[in-house]
Amino acid sequence: MSTFTIESTRSGFVESFHVVSAAVVDAEGTLVAASGDPDRVTFWRSAAKPFQSLPLVQDGAADRYGFGPRELALACASHSSEPVHRALAMQMLRACGCEEHQLACGPHPPLSPTVAEEALRTGVVLTPRWNNCSGKHAGMLALARHHGWDPRGYASAGHPVQERIHDEVAKWTGLPRDAFVKGVDGCLAVALALPLRAMATAWARFGISEEPSARRLREAMLAHPELVGGKGRACTDLLMAFRGEVVVKIGAEGVYCAALPRARLGVALKVEDGDARCAAPALLAVLQAVAAQQGIALSLAGLEHHAEPRLLNTRGEVTGTLRAVGELGFA
Amino acid sequence: MSTFTIESTRSGFVESFHVVSAAVVDAEGTLVAASGDPDRVTFWRSAAKPFQSLPLVQDGAADRYGFGPRELALACASHSSEPVHRALAMQMLRACGCEEHQLACGPHPPLSPTVAEEALRTGVVLTPRWNNCSGKHAGMLALARHHGWDPRGYASAGHPVQERIHDEVAKWTGLPRDAFVKGVDGCLAVALALPLRAMATAWARFGISEEPSARRLREAMLAHPELVGGKGRACTDLLMAFRGEVVVKIGAEGVYCAALPRARLGVALKVEDGDARCAAPALLAVLQAVAAQQGIALSLAGLEHHAEPRLLNTRGEVTGTLRAVGELGFA
Repeated sequence: MSTFTIESTRSGFVESFHVVSAAVVDAEGTLVAASGDPDRVTFWRSAAKPFQSLPLVQDGAADRYGFGPRELALACASHSSEPVHRALAMQMLRACGCEEHQLACGPHPPLSPTVAEEALRTGVVLTPRWNNCSGKHAGMLALARHHGWDPRGYASAGHPVQERIHDEVAKWTGLPRDAFVKGVDGCLAVALALPLRAMATAWARFGISEEPSARRLREAMLAHPELVGGKGRACTDLLMAFRGEVVVKIGAEGVYCAALPRARLGVALKVEDGDARCAAPALLAVLQAVAAQQGIALSLAGLEHHAEPRLLNTRGEVTGTLRAVGELGFA
Repeated sequence: MSTFTIESTRSGFVESFHVVSAAVVDAEGTLVAASGDPDRVTFWRSAAKPFQSLPLVQDGAADRYGFGPRELALACASHSSEPVHRALAMQMLRACGCEEHQLACGPHPPLSPTVAEEALRTGVVLTPRWNNCSGKHAGMLALARHHGWDPRGYASAGHPVQERIHDEVAKWTGLPRDAFVKGVDGCLAVALALPLRAMATAWARFGISEEPSARRLREAMLAHPELVGGKGRACTDLLMAFRGEVVVKIGAEGVYCAALPRARLGVALKVEDGDARCAAPALLAVLQAVAAQQGIALSLAGLEHHAEPRLLNTRGEVTGTLRAVGELGFA
């Protein structure tokens, strides 16, 4: 069994290590390559957002409320709580006649250290619009409004919004509806647990689908990388650097998913211990191995700090790096 | 091979997991119990502090500069940067004629979330005294002063202070001097990498030694748990709860060491991926297993939140816990 591991080094010596499970599959769900356990079942977290946003487009809510590529990119985002992200989430809420207090998600320190520090320094009160998922939640509220469903409880299991999403996830992953473990995500929305292989199948399909809703979401993410993450964030930088060759979305607890449309492949990975810092180095290692095998040129130029982040001590000196070792096993 | 794993759950389902390597040895270095790989080589980090502070006491520097139990506890601490910790570090510096700018360690956000938030809110400029290792560094400077060594570079490999510490570590671990990998710690002092089994041997000896320097440091830690960590920190709470049955010290990157004097045993563990949140749950699981086998009553009453920390979502609701599963293998 081939496995990628992310090593954390100190003064050139391996101090800690993180095991990576990954599945690379084609649009039919056939396993093409793997690291560790490609059948590992875990929560999809925010790497499910494009699929959670499909009903919003498909059912006509996005058109009704005037959501263009920017709003759709934000619905798929784990944003950095930058002013542009907060303003756009509020605009989405207003467009569908909702208010901020209706968002089920709670505030949290922004994912961008810069934004987080500024928020603390200025003493601003963090509200739900600051949640990295506020775009997704605004989209869920819009879906409820569009269908005339009571928006209360829209994020909880059993609500028509979540049922609608659940159907869509079953369709794209090819899993039966009762195959999912239901949990509560950090933002209070339903989180679904499923095998990495099924997540990768959905992503492979998402990367090449000509279904208008999928195409619009995919093109929105590619057109507005700055809204999918934020300044300096891995998703934003990767979407920009790979210029349409790869569509990516990170999830919490070490999850990262991607589509390589030209190769008709999908990727889903989990850093087994959930370390968020290792997700981007792991994804880039998998993408490089897959691209090389498929004959796709995928340059890491400008992405070195995501591929091999440097670790600093309290004097700002580099003590080591996070680096991928091992290899992907091809079927 | 028996192994403890720390599971991270979400809605009752295992989302991520952390493998724990641990060595439990007696004072002769014989392996009594293990989890994972007891010979795992990694950096000792701050769990080495009592040994890094031995020369300070043994060579007479502590007596010369009037360092009592409080100062010695702080020398062994990874403190929370509370006002009492910062003031005591400054007092140690003044006592040996040094100034804050001579500390090699840089500032970092305090380990206590409460202290960290207050620091950001008030906009105070963090200086080296805020470093969780400032007590250890003040002790190293005192050692240099006492011997008449040039204090410049006191934290770096090759300086007489580090050479003196290196000799002491070799003595307590029973390892030859050239068996250590030398690295740079987060605080810029020399960090030594060695097998968990050797760390545990040193801790077993530290727990029962009648050598005056070891006894004074051990008794200082037991007398002033509030100075070894800080309000709510695991080291402080465990030292208080176990009332002399266990001496403990955490290290960065998932390291935790302990001595059980009555059983004449030492413990050293490493969460393989370095997750700091898992170190206390792992230590408590190991301590419970060892205590049960040795017939020592070790109540976890009041320590439940360290043994099985709850995980919250952005609305402050509990989504899961960190919990130890598996078992310790006894030789």
